[in-house]
Amino acid sequence: MEITRKNFKQMLNFVTESINDADFLSVDGEFTGLDAKNGGHAMPFDTPEVRYQRVRQGTCDFLLLQFGVCTFHYNEEKSLYKARPFNFYIFPRPYSRSGPDVRFLCQSSSIEFLVSQGFDFNKAFKDGISYLTPGDEANLREALHQKHQQFSQFSSPAFVTPDGVSQGTSKGPVSIPDEQKEFIKEICEKVSDFVEKSTEDKLSLPSCNGFQRKLIYQSLRAQFLSGIHLETQTDEKKERHIVVTRIKSEEDMKRREAEKQAAEVTDLDNAVGFTKVIRTISQSGKLVVGHNMMLDLIHILHQFFYPLPESYEEFKDMSMSAFPKLLDTKLMASTSPFKDRIMNTGLSDLQKILEFKPFQKPQVEIEEKFNKYTTEKGPLHEAGYDAYLTGICFICMSNFLGTFQNPSQNIVPPSSPLIQPFINKLFLMRVHDIPYLNLAGKDLTPNRDHVFHLTFPKEWKTSDLIHLFSPFGGSQIFWLDDTSAFASLYLKEEAQKVLQNLCKSGTVYTIKTYHQYQHSESGNQALSRKRPTPSTENNVPNKKRKSLNVEAAPFVSRSITPPIPEENTENMDEPNGKDANNIKAMETESSNVKDKKKEEQMFVEPEVW
Amino acid sequence: MEITRKNFKQMLNFVTESINDADFLSVDGEFTGLDAKNGGHAMPFDTPEVRYQRVRQGTCDFLLLQFGVCTFHYNEEKSLYKARPFNFYIFPRPYSRSGPDVRFLCQSSSIEFLVSQGFDFNKAFKDGISYLTPGDEANLREALHQKHQQFSQFSSPAFVTPDGVSQGTSKGPVSIPDEQKEFIKEICEKVSDFVEKSTEDKLSLPSCNGFQRKLIYQSLRAQFLSGIHLETQTDEKKERHIVVTRIKSEEDMKRREAEKQAAEVTDLDNAVGFTKVIRTISQSGKLVVGHNMMLDLIHILHQFFYPLPESYEEFKDMSMSAFPKLLDTKLMASTSPFKDRIMNTGLSDLQKILEFKPFQKPQVEIEEKFNKYTTEKGPLHEAGYDAYLTGICFICMSNFLGTFQNPSQNIVPPSSPLIQPFINKLFLMRVHDIPYLNLAGKDLTPNRDHVFHLTFPKEWKTSDLIHLFSPFGGSQIFWLDDTSAFASLYLKEEAQKVLQNLCKSGTVYTIKTYHQYQHSESGNQALSRKRPTPSTENNVPNKKRKSLNVEAAPFVSRSITPPIPEENTENMDEPNGKDANNIKAMETESSNVKDKKKEEQMFVEPEVW
Repeated sequence: MEITRKNFKQMLNFVTESINDADFLSVDGEFTGLDAKNGGHAMPFDTPEVRYQRVRQGTCDFLLLQFGVCTFHYNEEKSLYKARPFNFYIFPRPYSRSGPDVRFLCQSSSIEFLVSQGFDFNKAFKDGISYLTPGDEANLREALHQKHQQFSQFSSPAFVTPDGVSQGTSKGPVSIPDEQKEFIKEICEKVSDFVEKSTEDKLSLPSCNGFQRKLIYQSLRAQFLSGIHLETQTDEKKERHIVVTRIKSEEDMKRREAEKQAAEVTDLDNAVGFTKVIRTISQSGKLVVGHNMMLDLIHILHQFFYPLPESYEEFKDMSMSAFPKLLDTKLMASTSPFKDRIMNTGLSDLQKILEFKPFQKPQVEIEEKFNKYTTEKGPLHEAGYDAYLTGICFICMSNFLGTFQNPSQNIVPPSSPLIQPFINKLFLMRVHDIPYLNLAGKDLTPNRDHVFHLTFPKEWKTSDLIHLFSPFGGSQIFWLDDTSAFASLYLKEEAQKVLQNLCKSGTVYTIKTYHQYQHSESGNQALSRKRPTPSTENNVPNKKRKSLNVEAAPFVSRSITPPIPEENTENMDEPNGKDANNIKAMETESSNVKDKKKEEQMFVEPEVW
Repeated sequence: MEITRKNFKQMLNFVTESINDADFLSVDGEFTGLDAKNGGHAMPFDTPEVRYQRVRQGTCDFLLLQFGVCTFHYNEEKSLYKARPFNFYIFPRPYSRSGPDVRFLCQSSSIEFLVSQGFDFNKAFKDGISYLTPGDEANLREALHQKHQQFSQFSSPAFVTPDGVSQGTSKGPVSIPDEQKEFIKEICEKVSDFVEKSTEDKLSLPSCNGFQRKLIYQSLRAQFLSGIHLETQTDEKKERHIVVTRIKSEEDMKRREAEKQAAEVTDLDNAVGFTKVIRTISQSGKLVVGHNMMLDLIHILHQFFYPLPESYEEFKDMSMSAFPKLLDTKLMASTSPFKDRIMNTGLSDLQKILEFKPFQKPQVEIEEKFNKYTTEKGPLHEAGYDAYLTGICFICMSNFLGTFQNPSQNIVPPSSPLIQPFINKLFLMRVHDIPYLNLAGKDLTPNRDHVFHLTFPKEWKTSDLIHLFSPFGGSQIFWLDDTSAFASLYLKEEAQKVLQNLCKSGTVYTIKTYHQYQHSESGNQALSRKRPTPSTENNVPNKKRKSLNVEAAPFVSRSITPPIPEENTENMDEPNGKDANNIKAMETESSNVKDKKKEEQMFVEPEVW
C-alpha cells in the first residue's frame, strides 16, 4: 500500500493497528546515497566501532526517501502469515518558515540506480510525508506556545502580523520609497473601499514581495486601527499575498484567533508526520527484521530520533532502546546452517534460493487493499517490496531451523529460541573476519597478528604484493587505495618471519603490523577529527566489557551447531574466520581499488542488497 | 526547446550554430539549493571578496540541474529579435565505473519550491545530459589511452577482462568456494556447448554478481584459452552479465577490439556532453546576460570548468577568461535611470513592469520549432523561460537608454557604448552600500566608519538596539543572528560620539567598529578555515589595484547621468550608497533574523529572482 502525504492522515490508524497486531515487522529504506566519499564507509579490517564511526560520518548526510514496513501476522486457522506491505514516501518538507530546512546529500550513482529501478522522485519530493525529530518538534511547540501567549498580550487586531504576533514593540515604521508610493496608495484605497462599501468578508490583495508586504502592513495599521485582520497566505505557486478580513466585534476577533491557533497546532501535529510511524514501531517492541540493515538502522535513528552519538557504546544503547529486537537476514543467510547452502545473499537472489530445496517457500498471503506484490516479479528496490521479500526470507530461514529439531518443527515463530542467536547482530559488510556488529553485547575481537598494512609506490600492482609475501606462504591482498593495502597471511604462523624479513629500512614500501597501523595517525585519519581519543580505539572492546555491563547474547540453540562463531575468538580458527565471509572477503579485495589496478575493475560495483 | 540526453547529440550542432549566430545570449540556471547553511551566503556589509568566499564555500556543493540559454539574433529586415530558447536538463550520470560519482547537496525548501513550479526531477535524473570537467575528461582520456595501449601488448583474447585489459599479469586464480562450484560448472558446460555446437555468434550468460563474474572469467580463461571473447554488459535494470562471443580468427579478434576501442572513445565524447555547450558559449565571446547572475556564474565555472579558486582575484580572472562580457539585468534594473522607475526587480515583476510606459515592450519573435513561450504566462522558473525573460528585459532596458539620446535611438544593440557601464558587474544581494561585484576592475570600497557590530544577550530585540542608538540620531539595524547585528548610523557624523559613549566596559553588549570587526576573529569565522591570511581582508582592494593590473571599466556613457556610482566612493554620499539599494537594505535588515525577532518574520523568505 502506497502511503504519501495525500493519504497518510487517513491511513495512520490502520498502519498503527497493523504494527501492533503483527507477529513481526520487516523494514527497508531507500536512500539518496551511500558513501560521502568513494568506498568511505566500508574498509577491510574495520572493527565494528570503526565501521560505526565511518558510517556515522559518511552516510548520515544522505536522506532516507522511502521506507517500507511489512507487517506479518500469523493466522493459526489458515496456518499462514498475512502480510501487509506499506510503502511510505518521505520528504522533509519545511513545515513553516521557522521549521528546519534540511540539507541533504545525493550520490549520482545512487540516484541513477534508483531512477533506473523506477523510483519516482517527483512523487517523493511532492507528496513525501513530512517528519520532525523529537528535538525539532519540541522547539517548534515551544515557539508556537510563546507566540500564542504573546498574542494574548496585545489586543488591537490590526497589529497582527502574518504570524499572529504583535508589532507593537517593534521599531517605528520604515519610510516608503518613492517607487513604492503609488503601489501602497492603491492598496490603501482598495482596502478603504472594501471596508466601507463591500459586502464581502474577505479581500485578497495582489501577491507582492516581503518588503511590500511590510509596507502594506504598516500603512493599513496606521489607517485602520481596528476593524480588519491581516494574514499572509501562500498560494500553490509559492507566491505570498495578504488577505484582509473584516472584524465585526472583539468576540469575532477572539474566535478568529482561537481558530487560527488551533489550526497552527494541527499543522504542527501534521508536520510530525512519519515520525509517528517510527515511534509506533519502536513502542511496539516487535521484532524488526531487515536485510543488511546497518544503514537502515542508522538512518532511522538519525532521521527520526536524535543525532547519532559520537560514542559507539551510546549508539548501541540508543539502538536497543529504540528497537529492542532486531534481526538481519543477510547475516542470518551468511551464517551456519545457511551459509553453505546459499551462494548469494543479495536480497533478490536469496529469496529465489529459499524457494527451493532444502528450503521451502512459506505460505504468505497479502491482504486485500494492498499492492499485489508477488515473489516472482515485483518492484525490486521499492522499499515496501524489499521489506516484504525480507520478511519472506526471514520466515523461510526460521522454518528451516525447525527442520533440525527433533521432532521437526514446521513453523518456527519469531519468538522461538531458535532465532535468538541472530537477534541484535547486524551484518558487517566487507569485513574479513568479523561477521557482525553486536548491538546487545561485546563485539568479536579476532586475532589479527598475521595482518599487515602496507604503503608503496602507486605503480605497484597486486602481483608485486603477492610476490612480496610469497616466501611466507602467500597472503590475501585487500586494497585500500592506489598506494596502500592490507595483506593477510595464509599461514598465520609466518607472521613473525614477515616482521623479521620485511620490516626493515631502505625499502620502497613501508609495512606495519595491524596493531601498529591502528595506533598510527593514518589509521585514524578518517575518524580523527571528531573523536577525542582515537588512539584507544584498539582497547575499546575491553573498555566496553567493563562499562557497558551487558551480557553477551547466549547461544541457546542446542540442536544445531552454534550458528555464529563464539564470542571469544582471540584464537579464532581459519575456517570460522575466513570461509564464513569468503565471498565478502573476495569482493573486498578489490572493491576499493582505483582503476589503475585494472584486473580488479569488475568488482568495483556496490554490494547488492 | 527542451534538450535532454535523448536529443542532445542530434541537436548539438544546431545549438552551436544558434550561439555563434546570436547578437547576445541570456542564461539561467536552476539549482538543488542555495545555502549550505541558513543565510549562509549573504550577510549585510559583506565586501565583494567576502561574499565570493561565502558563496564558494556555501553554494558550490549544490548542483545546477537545469540550464537555459536563449539566443537573440537581430533581424534587420523585420526590425525584431529572433529568439531561440533552449532548456537543458543536466545530470552528472556516472560515465563509467571509473568516472566521477558526484556527490551533491540539496536544500529541502529549494526542492519543494522547484517541485511546486512543476520541475520534473525524474526527467532531470533520468534524461539529464552528462558533463565532465576538463580535468575529469583529461584523466579519463589518459586512462582510456593507457588501457588501449596495454591491450595491444597481450594477444590471447580469452585474457580480456570486461574492460579489455589483460589479466595476464594479475595474481593467480582465486579458489572457487564450495557453494559456487556447481554454478561455475554449469556455466562452463553451457559455454562448452556454445563453442562446440551452437551456430550463434554470441551467448549471453545469466546475470550474476562481481565475484561470480570473476570466477567465470578465470574458469573460462583456463578452459578456452582462445576462441572466445568475453565482455560484461549492463542491462537497463543495472544487472550485469557476461557476453561470450565466438572468435573466428586473429583478424576477427583485432577488428572486434578496434571496434570496441572506438566505441569507448565515442562513449567518452558523449560523457563530455553539456560541457560542450558551455565551451561554445565561452568561445563565442558573446555578451552573456543573466538576472542576479552571481550564483549562475559561480555554478557554471565550478561545474563545467575548474574548482573555484580560493583567491578572489583568480576568480575574477577565471570569470573574465571564461566569459569576457557579462551583464546582470537585476543590477541594471537597480541602477539609474531604472531604479526610480522599477518597484520590484524580481525577474517576473521586472518583465511585467517593462511592458508599460515609460518602457516599451520589444519586438521579439520565437522561432519555429521552439516552445511557444509567451511573456504573459510561461513556465516561470524553468531555466529556458527565465533566460528568455531575462533577454527580453535586457533588450527593453537597453532600448530605454536610447530614449535619452539626441536624437532618440529606438534600438540599442548589445554592442552599444550605452551598455558598457553595466558590463561585468554582478548584482550583490543584500549588501547595503555596494551594489555590485566588479569582475573587470576594482571593487567599490564605501566608507563604513558609521557602521558598528554588536553582540548582546539573546533576549534583546530590535527595540533595544534602536534605543541604544537613539541618542545619536538613530540607526538602521541589520540582524546577523540571535545575539549579533550591525547598526548603521543615520547621521554619519555621530560615529565618534558613539565610540566615546557606547564603547566602554561593563556593558551587557559589546560593540566594535566595522573595521575592528573585520579584523577580529569572529568576523572571519566563516571564512577562516581555508583562507591563509584572513586578517588582510580589509586591504584587498588596494592590494588588488597593484597585482591585478586590470583597468577599471570606464564610464563611457555621456548623454545620461553615470548609472553606477563612481569607482572611488571613499566619501560616497548617502543617496548613492543608500537609495540605490533601499529595498535590498530593508530586506537585509531582517533577512537573517531568527524567529525570536518575531516582528521581522515576514521577510525571511529568500529573495526572488
